[in-house]
Amino acid sequence: MESVDSSLKRLGNTEHFLTFQKTDLEQFVHEARSLNLRIAVVTSGGTTVPLEQRAVRFIDNFSTGTRGATSTEKFLDLGSVDNTSGDPWRKKYAVVFLTREGSKQPYLRKVSAQHIAEACEILASQVTVRDKSIVTALTSWKTTRSRLFVIYFTTVQQYLADLFSIAQTVKPYRRSVLFFLAAAVSDYYVPFDQLSAHKIQSDTEDLVLNLQRVPKCLGSLRHDWAPEAFVASFKLETDESLLMGKARGALAKYNMHCVIGNVLDNRYEEVLIIDKKGKKLLQKGSGNEELETVLVSEIARMHEQYSKNG
Amino acid sequence: MESVDSSLKRLGNTEHFLTFQKTDLEQFVHEARSLNLRIAVVTSGGTTVPLEQRAVRFIDNFSTGTRGATSTEKFLDLGSVDNTSGDPWRKKYAVVFLTREGSKQPYLRKVSAQHIAEACEILASQVTVRDKSIVTALTSWKTTRSRLFVIYFTTVQQYLADLFSIAQTVKPYRRSVLFFLAAAVSDYYVPFDQLSAHKIQSDTEDLVLNLQRVPKCLGSLRHDWAPEAFVASFKLETDESLLMGKARGALAKYNMHCVIGNVLDNRYEEVLIIDKKGKKLLQKGSGNEELETVLVSEIARMHEQYSKNG
Repeated sequence: MESVDSSLKRLGNTEHFLTFQKTDLEQFVHEARSLNLRIAVVTSGGTTVPLEQRAVRFIDNFSTGTRGATSTEKFLDLGSVDNTSGDPWRKKYAVVFLTREGSKQPYLRKVSAQHIAEACEILASQVTVRDKSIVTALTSWKTTRSRLFVIYFTTVQQYLADLFSIAQTVKPYRRSVLFFLAAAVSDYYVPFDQLSAHKIQSDTEDLVLNLQRVPKCLGSLRHDWAPEAFVASFKLETDESLLMGKARGALAKYNMHCVIGNVLDNRYEEVLIIDKKGKKLLQKGSGNEELETVLVSEIARMHEQYSKNG
Repeated sequence: MESVDSSLKRLGNTEHFLTFQKTDLEQFVHEARSLNLRIAVVTSGGTTVPLEQRAVRFIDNFSTGTRGATSTEKFLDLGSVDNTSGDPWRKKYAVVFLTREGSKQPYLRKVSAQHIAEACEILASQVTVRDKSIVTALTSWKTTRSRLFVIYFTTVQQYLADLFSIAQTVKPYRRSVLFFLAAAVSDYYVPFDQLSAHKIQSDTEDLVLNLQRVPKCLGSLRHDWAPEAFVASFKLETDESLLMGKARGALAKYNMHCVIGNVLDNRYEEVLIIDKKGKKLLQKGSGNEELETVLVSEIARMHEQYSKNG
């Protein structure tokens, strides 16, 4: 197992990559816990790998961040068992949302500026929108702000530095913390000192890129960074026949509490939850309800059971 | 000089990559010309290079599409010389905007859904926005719709196929057409038949990618696809000392009418316009006016002069 130092040391100075103020997060988490909310850390969207120091080009992946954004909504929507008052602070979770800049955001994912431009009326220097889905999305966005702390990353270096720092911050809250790692983290990168200083010139017929493995931090997260938190990670494959083996491998290798396996083609239709006891298939219902409703509900149930045993 | 066939043949069947209906564009351009509008084809944003057939990973570049979106606004704003009526159809240009999906859009670039969510009031199932910059942007967006034809691309293959098809469509309108090529087109790609069919596995310590040069289509555009259109291309460098040489090289090699040179760090502050007669430095004014106002005005002037000599 890699130690904290060895897993992140290869990236250089992680403080240099941090994209948020640690004191702000400390305050948010402290307030949430004082209101007896659990903490869900949801990561979302894809990390990029710069190919130049003055990064013009980078490697990215197709992730839109929809899974993470939708799941964040479901965590925010979950009510306390004894919640009958409708008071938003009687909800179950506060969410730390570590998200790729520009990827899908909770509630706003269904509302683009163009969508609003098409739906709106403009009269007397005032824009009015009556479209029900837009009104609903903006209302939900406004009413959940106080329980949502958003951190934006772009590069894989920023993502890992942020995740490490978040883990350090929530570590004292032990089993009340859940990590829901839906971000698509790059597997390979080019260390900063090996990057071309300027834009790669395009004079030659071929270009060969040599990439190295990104430090795998799941093991460090589980064992060093926040060893008492419940950790659910994702495994995405395009080839279904590889999925179970890969997911079971990640479960064992990094000692995850569960791995959520999904196949590119039907990832919004069904997922597999794999833990030490076995596997469970979750499927989207027949109505409008999204798959993430059952997924987040199941993960929250597992988290609750885990935290009661603490 | 490459012929049409040899430059695009390496990509495979270009029809397969097309992202718009050619008949829709034909109708748009025909109507614009019947109203005596010139046609500006503005390309914008970065192209991606898929690294897998079921593309999970791809190479991208940092381009946000701001230059193309802003320039499109300026082309749409330009009035006819004799325009005093305020009639939008007395404007100078209709714009075909070939833009990366998700990158900045004309007028909406300053208005995100989050911006609206923060600024709005919600009362009685109705969203109201009074923020002046939002109202102005949405108003401009609505009033220019009829002169703007938007085509979205993601991959470099889609971009080249779309550009080729646009060029064929506008070719009959000869010197009344201007190409303003602000898109950041990938220099290297992996041909489809060499792509890994499934997600690249991350079991090995290193990953080596072998990329080939993307066919350079600027020469084909100038000489075969739309030989009478005015073509302005861009050259971006991070190293200022390389810029003039690179820009002059592109001017000569592809027989551009002009090359707009810019350096990453100050690209919104100044650009160089290089043509056969020499170079001209354009700088952002001291006020709020954007650099693209002077840039587009200068390019439109050059286009006007060129079309008069036809």
